[in-house]
Amino acid sequence: MSIQHTVVFRLVHEPGSTAEIEFLASGRATLISIPGVTAFAVNRQVSPKSDLTWQFSMVFADQAAYDAYNAHPAHVEFVETRWKTEVDAFQEYDFVAH
Amino acid sequence: MSIQHTVVFRLVHEPGSTAEIEFLASGRATLISIPGVTAFAVNRQVSPKSDLTWQFSMVFADQAAYDAYNAHPAHVEFVETRWKTEVDAFQEYDFVAH
Repeated sequence: MSIQHTVVFRLVHEPGSTAEIEFLASGRATLISIPGVTAFAVNRQVSPKSDLTWQFSMVFADQAAYDAYNAHPAHVEFVETRWKTEVDAFQEYDFVAH
Repeated sequence: MSIQHTVVFRLVHEPGSTAEIEFLASGRATLISIPGVTAFAVNRQVSPKSDLTWQFSMVFADQAAYDAYNAHPAHVEFVETRWKTEVDAFQEYDFVAH
């Protein structure tokens, strides 16, 4: 069964800044290139009921594809070199159809 | 621009209980019938990084459709008679494409 992996987050960068735009573009380019990632999307979170402002969303065909993504060097490097220093707060959710 | 309205939640009911199944079915039937609601989905939230266990997701064509849904008597009644007593915790997010 396919899994929608999502993370909602807020950056340390100023909204509208060059650093923000660069982070989103770099994240997209890096993560979309990893095998098994489909339907990759960057969304703006606009509900005032949360102070998180962005979402990365992607779909994996199955748990094996998801596990391979998590262990992929490009993902690990992105988390270590960008995510940990440029993301101020985040929440992960994974969805499967009911 | 279309808006994906989502709420991730946890019920007061036991997982796998008849009450849980009934709540999800009733929510689906009620909310999907409201004009402007498209792509309605009930998803299971499976990441161990959150203790919320379900998601309702729907897409509105624009803010006017979303506003009409929020004000619709069927939505208001569902919130008052079911959501407020049967939902233990929740978080709303709304997404628009970047």
